[in-house]
Amino acid sequence: MQKFKAVDHSNISIEQGFWHHRQHLNAETTIYSVWQRFEETGRFSALKLDWKEGDPNKPHIFYDSDVAKWIESAAYILEKNSDKKLENKVDELIDLIVKNQEETGYFNSWFQQFDPEGRFTRRADHELYCAGHLMEAAVAYYNSTGKDKLLKAMCRYADYIEKVFKIERTAEFVTCGHPEIELALVRLYHCTGESRYLELSKWFIDMRGKDEKNTFYPWANSRYAQDHLPVRRQTTAEGHSVRAAYLYSAMADIAYEYEDMELQQACETIFDDIFHKKMYITGGIGSSRRGEAFTVPYDLPNETAYAESCAAIALAMFANRMLRLNPDVRYADVVETVLYNGFLASTSLDGRSFFYENPLSVDLSLRGRDTSVNDKEALPITERVEVFDCSCCPPNITRFVAAVADYLYTVNDESLYIHQYMGSSCETDIGSQKIYISQETNYPVDGNIKIKVKGAKGRNLFIRVPSWCDDYSLSVDGKACKADKENGYLRIECEADELEAELLLDMSCRLVEASPSVHANAGKAALLRGPVVYCMEAVDNGRDIQDIMIDSNIRPEVEPSEGFYFPVIHLDGCRRKYDSDSLYRPLSRELIPAKVKFIPYYAFANRGESDMQVWFNVKR
Amino acid sequence: MQKFKAVDHSNISIEQGFWHHRQHLNAETTIYSVWQRFEETGRFSALKLDWKEGDPNKPHIFYDSDVAKWIESAAYILEKNSDKKLENKVDELIDLIVKNQEETGYFNSWFQQFDPEGRFTRRADHELYCAGHLMEAAVAYYNSTGKDKLLKAMCRYADYIEKVFKIERTAEFVTCGHPEIELALVRLYHCTGESRYLELSKWFIDMRGKDEKNTFYPWANSRYAQDHLPVRRQTTAEGHSVRAAYLYSAMADIAYEYEDMELQQACETIFDDIFHKKMYITGGIGSSRRGEAFTVPYDLPNETAYAESCAAIALAMFANRMLRLNPDVRYADVVETVLYNGFLASTSLDGRSFFYENPLSVDLSLRGRDTSVNDKEALPITERVEVFDCSCCPPNITRFVAAVADYLYTVNDESLYIHQYMGSSCETDIGSQKIYISQETNYPVDGNIKIKVKGAKGRNLFIRVPSWCDDYSLSVDGKACKADKENGYLRIECEADELEAELLLDMSCRLVEASPSVHANAGKAALLRGPVVYCMEAVDNGRDIQDIMIDSNIRPEVEPSEGFYFPVIHLDGCRRKYDSDSLYRPLSRELIPAKVKFIPYYAFANRGESDMQVWFNVKR
Repeated sequence: MQKFKAVDHSNISIEQGFWHHRQHLNAETTIYSVWQRFEETGRFSALKLDWKEGDPNKPHIFYDSDVAKWIESAAYILEKNSDKKLENKVDELIDLIVKNQEETGYFNSWFQQFDPEGRFTRRADHELYCAGHLMEAAVAYYNSTGKDKLLKAMCRYADYIEKVFKIERTAEFVTCGHPEIELALVRLYHCTGESRYLELSKWFIDMRGKDEKNTFYPWANSRYAQDHLPVRRQTTAEGHSVRAAYLYSAMADIAYEYEDMELQQACETIFDDIFHKKMYITGGIGSSRRGEAFTVPYDLPNETAYAESCAAIALAMFANRMLRLNPDVRYADVVETVLYNGFLASTSLDGRSFFYENPLSVDLSLRGRDTSVNDKEALPITERVEVFDCSCCPPNITRFVAAVADYLYTVNDESLYIHQYMGSSCETDIGSQKIYISQETNYPVDGNIKIKVKGAKGRNLFIRVPSWCDDYSLSVDGKACKADKENGYLRIECEADELEAELLLDMSCRLVEASPSVHANAGKAALLRGPVVYCMEAVDNGRDIQDIMIDSNIRPEVEPSEGFYFPVIHLDGCRRKYDSDSLYRPLSRELIPAKVKFIPYYAFANRGESDMQVWFNVKR
Repeated sequence: MQKFKAVDHSNISIEQGFWHHRQHLNAETTIYSVWQRFEETGRFSALKLDWKEGDPNKPHIFYDSDVAKWIESAAYILEKNSDKKLENKVDELIDLIVKNQEETGYFNSWFQQFDPEGRFTRRADHELYCAGHLMEAAVAYYNSTGKDKLLKAMCRYADYIEKVFKIERTAEFVTCGHPEIELALVRLYHCTGESRYLELSKWFIDMRGKDEKNTFYPWANSRYAQDHLPVRRQTTAEGHSVRAAYLYSAMADIAYEYEDMELQQACETIFDDIFHKKMYITGGIGSSRRGEAFTVPYDLPNETAYAESCAAIALAMFANRMLRLNPDVRYADVVETVLYNGFLASTSLDGRSFFYENPLSVDLSLRGRDTSVNDKEALPITERVEVFDCSCCPPNITRFVAAVADYLYTVNDESLYIHQYMGSSCETDIGSQKIYISQETNYPVDGNIKIKVKGAKGRNLFIRVPSWCDDYSLSVDGKACKADKENGYLRIECEADELEAELLLDMSCRLVEASPSVHANAGKAALLRGPVVYCMEAVDNGRDIQDIMIDSNIRPEVEPSEGFYFPVIHLDGCRRKYDSDSLYRPLSRELIPAKVKFIPYYAFANRGESDMQVWFNVKR
């Protein structure tokens, strides 16, 4: 089995370009904004276990996971930025956790306060999910600062979980309703070297769908939590999309660690199901609000797209893990699609507010539909907010941005793969070899990427050509180079210790259509430039943007944009006349020409509420 | 105030063509099919008031109205057809009603059995609605057979209602949650000459939205039952669409009877709101399942169109009443649209099964969306069924078909208006004058209508030119005639006692588009021929019909069809290739030509479940 190690973000500095800007925003603004909101909503003080009836902000069952993800984010930020205020806050939170941890190792601020007897009796109640996030936080904080207080505490907790769930089997369920512990235990294993943690993770993976009888939400069926089959026999992406993609990521981890081809095959088959049938063009997954779930193939409605921010993150996690098993360009393509679209849209341009769902169309005229009933239809929100009741997304977003360099490179003894393009430098040890990689690029503002590699002599360097790019050129050490493409990567043999490559990707605008099986997009196209999906908003294009038709033969005007970072694009189109108050009228072929302004999808809803659409009618 | 009397269906025989066929089907099949289903579901036996715990078919709160509408249907059928079996059954049902009617005049099979103390305490519970339908049945059966047993009983009931609601005001609500009694009382007044009934109807109309405090469904707001304003101040169509259009019809009745211009103005304004903003191209209204209600302007989704069969009927009732106040062609256009589309689709070709909702698109791929939750999303049914739990539509449909001739003519001292075209003969007295009108036509299979009028000397004959028709010709007594068009009607002065006119309407196929404000139909067109809306089904056109694009420059092939009565139409179109398993791909302008078969919309879902769409993408 060919295996690749991912280069950890701690070895990489993003020094330039878009992601540098986003990491800066994340460290300066987002982490603090989430801190404030968590403070105000009692998420941090919940760790004190002293909430009393009548107090505001009664803690929620998975507040611990929110706090843990925030700590993990802070840990990554502290790797690159000295920030005493942030570090002190983390230490304070860790002190609270450790102080209130039970003798047994158990820690859950909700169960300890509100239902001590209920511990490990209700599968739906996210206990192991919270535990997993605390473990990830512990590993991250230890790696970042060397402080092991939380790590030691979480090892004790993991030991306790092993005892209760695997050794004594006294818990009233077998696997957690929300996967996460499986991912955390693998990280805990890597951090501590303790193989029992890896084994416990594998055990949770293998038990899923086999022996689970514990009741769950009454409205959910076994697919909701991916219990319908043992994981090795699962072939389609099912159920709650965050749970699903966390599980698939963990399956990929276990496949990797154990070189388990059967599990790898299951991961590949499930990935294919998502890739060919269940993914928005933005990388969003889980199209339905009902169960926040995957549904049937090709069911990708735009207006009601759920496409949770956490699900986009989870898909990137899954795809990146698949790259370690098999460096196929489509995994990296999916990561890239998520990065610039489905994930990025989750956060406002000022870094303070968030989408939970990420619709591909906003039609404000539908917002008032409930004229005669008192309850309001659950439609996606149209502007980002700073905190949610279920605020899983904001700290997930900040930890993802802080560690985004995790997605750049995989290596093994023969090869070095470059998957994503970000202006950065990397220094890492591979075996006994020290390798240095730098990228100089403003990608995806333009498609020019200068790569320097040192210390890779004798290796193959694989440079990704994104699948969307038909026109590219490569030069190596100043000379044009016709490299072979293998699974979407240009292969260069590093004959010297140092190598300079320059990749030029054609960033022409292009129209993309969906498969005829996607009924929601029949007759429609989307505009992309590089990996960036574009959208049109009413704020730029007037009322009834749904009526705009774009000429299929495009002559784009690309205009730099500071505010959106990526350029805005103008296309020729047309729209119909409002020449009568008739609801129905003879079809007219007389159309009014219209210049249509597109902005990067990720930046929609930053200028007030506005109609928006990614998919537009096209005039062929 | 100019006023017109509608010629009652009892004066008209439909002897030819499509509606003759439908009335035959109705009298031979539909009325018996509904009878059987009502027998099986205990609707008839509920009148015995002897249901016991453990018995099947516990009666429902508005079973009386189902039975009443069935009696009313039977009454209309018996006008033209001697059918002893049917008449005996009606007499048996009437005997039960009268036997169980209280001394006071009260009759309600549910309240008398299950909650005698609850009488007139709960506005939502359809008591006056049931009473109204029983009154309409009584009037119809008396008019048809001369038997006055039910009529007398219902007059006693009306007297009792007047006492409780208007005189003593001891009921716990002021107006019924579901309008109907208002319509019934006007008919009772016309049948008996008792003006108190008319006054009571007006009283209910005037009290609505004024003084109503009785609680209703907790999920409904005041718009749901058109209580948000006094009716004279209402300007938009709101709430439950059947309730609404029954109310508006009754408002038009009262405006007519009292020559009440203020009320007429309210009716006109509300009609405009429907006509310009809230009506499907099929004449369906009430686009949302939530509250079965009107929503915001231009909210006309196709897949989830609710468009209840009873609402289509109610809109025709409303529009027809408006014609008596003001003979404007758009009222007759709406009646026609409903007749051939939104109403007609409600019934299967074999006359046995019914739609409650009438969607404008069926996408079977969405039916399985709920893969991870146990409850199923409420989506429109895809095939008609014989009976519903709430089976208001089937007996409403059969009474409507049996009395469809009500929609043909209005007259006053100077004028005779011909609104709809059906092969028929009519003999009616207007004042002291006996007028005979016949139509010889196979409309809308073709557009050729021969009209003979006798006894109309000195009157103006107004012959409707449907608004969809730009190209028509008229000859009178064999000579081409350039008649003036007034509000959409060709005016002919009848100079002799007899007159023969021949109208030729161009029945070319045409593509129609919706206003740009209807976002659901952006980029789309619908095919019509005459008043008939067409649709395409997957059973004729293969998978993914949503992807079909129709050339905007149509060259239709019109092919006679026995099964659908109206012709089927073939248009040129194209569709995209399935050339890869990619979910997303570069936009291709290479399309595969396709011949596309359209059938009349009303006939969809008669050949098994199938994807269907009225609105299709169009290639401009």
